[in-house]
Amino acid sequence: MKAYLGRRYRLSASHRLHTPALSEAENQAVYGKCANPHGHGHNYTVEVMVGGEIDAATGMVCDLAELDGCVSREVLEPFDHQNLNTLGEFRNRVPTTENLLIEIEWRLRRALRPELSLRVRVEETAKNFFEYRG
Amino acid sequence: MKAYLGRRYRLSASHRLHTPALSEAENQAVYGKCANPHGHGHNYTVEVMVGGEIDAATGMVCDLAELDGCVSREVLEPFDHQNLNTLGEFRNRVPTTENLLIEIEWRLRRALRPELSLRVRVEETAKNFFEYRG
Amino acid sequence: MKAYLGRRYRLSASHRLHTPALSEAENQAVYGKCANPHGHGHNYTVEVMVGGEIDAATGMVCDLAELDGCVSREVLEPFDHQNLNTLGEFRNRVPTTENLLIEIEWRLRRALRPELSLRVRVEETAKNFFEYRG
Amino acid sequence: MKAYLGRRYRLSASHRLHTPALSEAENQAVYGKCANPHGHGHNYTVEVMVGGEIDAATGMVCDLAELDGCVSREVLEPFDHQNLNTLGEFRNRVPTTENLLIEIEWRLRRALRPELSLRVRVEETAKNFFEYRG
Amino acid sequence: MKAYLGRRYRLSASHRLHTPALSEAENQAVYGKCANPHGHGHNYTVEVMVGGEIDAATGMVCDLAELDGCVSREVLEPFDHQNLNTLGEFRNRVPTTENLLIEIEWRLRRALRPELSLRVRVEETAKNFFEYRG
Amino acid sequence: MKAYLGRRYRLSASHRLHTPALSEAENQAVYGKCANPHGHGHNYTVEVMVGGEIDAATGMVCDLAELDGCVSREVLEPFDHQNLNTLGEFRNRVPTTENLLIEIEWRLRRALRPELSLRVRVEETAKNFFEYRG
Repeated sequence: MKAYLGRRYRLSASHRLHTPALSEAENQAVYGKCANPHGHGHNYTVEVMVGGEIDAATGMVCDLAELDGCVSREVLEPFDHQNLNTLGEFRNRVPTTENLLIEIEWRLRRALRPELSLRVRVEETAKNFFEYRG
Repeated sequence: MKAYLGRRYRLSASHRLHTPALSEAENQAVYGKCANPHGHGHNYTVEVMVGGEIDAATGMVCDLAELDGCVSREVLEPFDHQNLNTLGEFRNRVPTTENLLIEIEWRLRRALRPELSLRVRVEETAKNFFEYRG
Repeated sequence: MKAYLGRRYRLSASHRLHTPALSEAENQAVYGKCANPHGHGHNYTVEVMVGGEIDAATGMVCDLAELDGCVSREVLEPFDHQNLNTLGEFRNRVPTTENLLIEIEWRLRRALRPELSLRVRVEETAKNFFEYRG
Repeated sequence: MKAYLGRRYRLSASHRLHTPALSEAENQAVYGKCANPHGHGHNYTVEVMVGGEIDAATGMVCDLAELDGCVSREVLEPFDHQNLNTLGEFRNRVPTTENLLIEIEWRLRRALRPELSLRVRVEETAKNFFEYRG
Repeated sequence: MKAYLGRRYRLSASHRLHTPALSEAENQAVYGKCANPHGHGHNYTVEVMVGGEIDAATGMVCDLAELDGCVSREVLEPFDHQNLNTLGEFRNRVPTTENLLIEIEWRLRRALRPELSLRVRVEETAKNFFEYRG
Repeated sequence: MKAYLGRRYRLSASHRLHTPALSEAENQAVYGKCANPHGHGHNYTVEVMVGGEIDAATGMVCDLAELDGCVSREVLEPFDHQNLNTLGEFRNRVPTTENLLIEIEWRLRRALRPELSLRVRVEETAKNFFEYRG
């Protein structure tokens, strides 16, 4: 019996979307006001969905304390209340939510037990969300 | 690296569910109060999810201004603040949310670049939603 | 010991905002696309808040079945799944949400026991809401 | 033309997570405060998603009254406003939301017409949700 | 310069609405399925709103860590993941949400600095909420 | 007949909570991780509620296009997609949400017609909101 458990976490961070690979005019055209020089920020919702067999004794897909510890260590500690542009992870990548999502997925995939399937979704605003399926 | 970007749009419209293919009693049985003679309306949420490669330079799946322009032209201009029953698209189809969804998907599929995958979801009320997967 | 009980109800209706008291150009200027000739619609949320003494025996401000019956009779039956412009209540008033709110408040005030205080709030869309305080 | 209709239902129930298969210390480690002796409770949201051909005459995937009747009989009547631990369905299974989900899916699958596909999602709190895909 | 800070907390608990002051038939009439013998439960949202002068140096109405500590001690520890009927606070009062609200307000009022104004709101379900204004 | 119209606007901004009026240790104690050196950010929801007589001809409390224009000019243009710490308005005040609220209220009060009453609410996260009542 396989089921999926989804759990929502929240983090607040700032970023500026701008890349030296493009001219100023191109940055403006691609990122609009997200390229404003001093940055801005968001409340991100990170939805982590893990799938696996329901344990016959406990009736659970995975240990919640273990999952929370993993997300705390791999996602909340490095990214919550940070300016994403100042972090090593985004030295060579623009901190778009697409790239944040890829980074989060990679960190969780590496940290979770391999028999659990994983799907990550990040909401950037009430209008925008992003999903990755490994 | 492939990811999915979801974006939510809102539109308000009215409709009446009633078809000449059925008798009055059958219309009543199938549609209930949705068959009331003068119609009623909803705030629809249209969730458009496009999937594609993350561009290595911009870190984005697609250009947001381009996507917004496409949804404006193909969905909001024709359907927002309209009575669906008076539109050509629903001359021969009952404007159920299933049929509205199919029409929206068809219009967006035709307008979006073919390398982007597409998935559309329409929420009719807080209790009802509809999805199409091409 | 006085407390307030709030309860949310939903109704779907259509309307067109247009008044013969104004010219076509003025209607357009005041109501914009809400003046489109065939109307449009909304999912309205009606929040009814009644205040009163907490009954020492039951621990409740009012009987929920009684309140639900009252709102059903006075609000949902006359307005749910209707075109507001076709109703007698709006023969001489534009069915703006302000006027719908006033009508709902008047009907509930008349029907509820006078020792209960009343406050009504109507949400028209995720962006717009209206309140009346008697 | 195939589409999916999702519909949300709500139920309130109580449960205690505790199993005789584990020692007290293990129960505490696995379930934390969910193992508190007198139980606690939740407002569960049950999202039922059925997929099928859109009927050419009615423009609908399935009859809503039929679906609502089925969910009422199979899910709301047995589980709403109950203590899950006292029910026969959970005599030999811990009433985790994973196990509640499996039971709901099994009941609906048995009751729905076989040509409809089915997917069930249960939200336990604003932070936790569970999905089953047959 | 006075402002109000609102902060939301969540707790899950179970209760049964039933009073020896009424006959079985009366209990049934007043509380309906909330009188079911084994109880049920809810995810409660407790919204605490404190008002006061904005401190000129910090720009804040009150210290958040202090407020969180106070709500933890006075509300979450005694009521979260509990069966309200088994607690001393409800030995002589039915654990309706009205009575839970009164108890929470009384505890917070006693614990908060007297120069802060206080307003408490408890949401029991997506349809029901309760407010107390001291 | 007086009613209140509420309208929600969204803006994304970044800030750092830190004041030279306090020592580093005090800044840390008061603001916690909100004092992190490079800042972070939020999606703010600004709820503007204006009260006034319902116009007998139009059935409206105020002109929506006028209100939207006013909020755009006074709130969204100066604060959306900005780093609040870099703005003149916060040169001598910490950009807490309390201070942002006071600034927004002052700007709107100055710009709105004096016969309209005004109430502003700012949501900083899903857990925190702030209100000012003039």
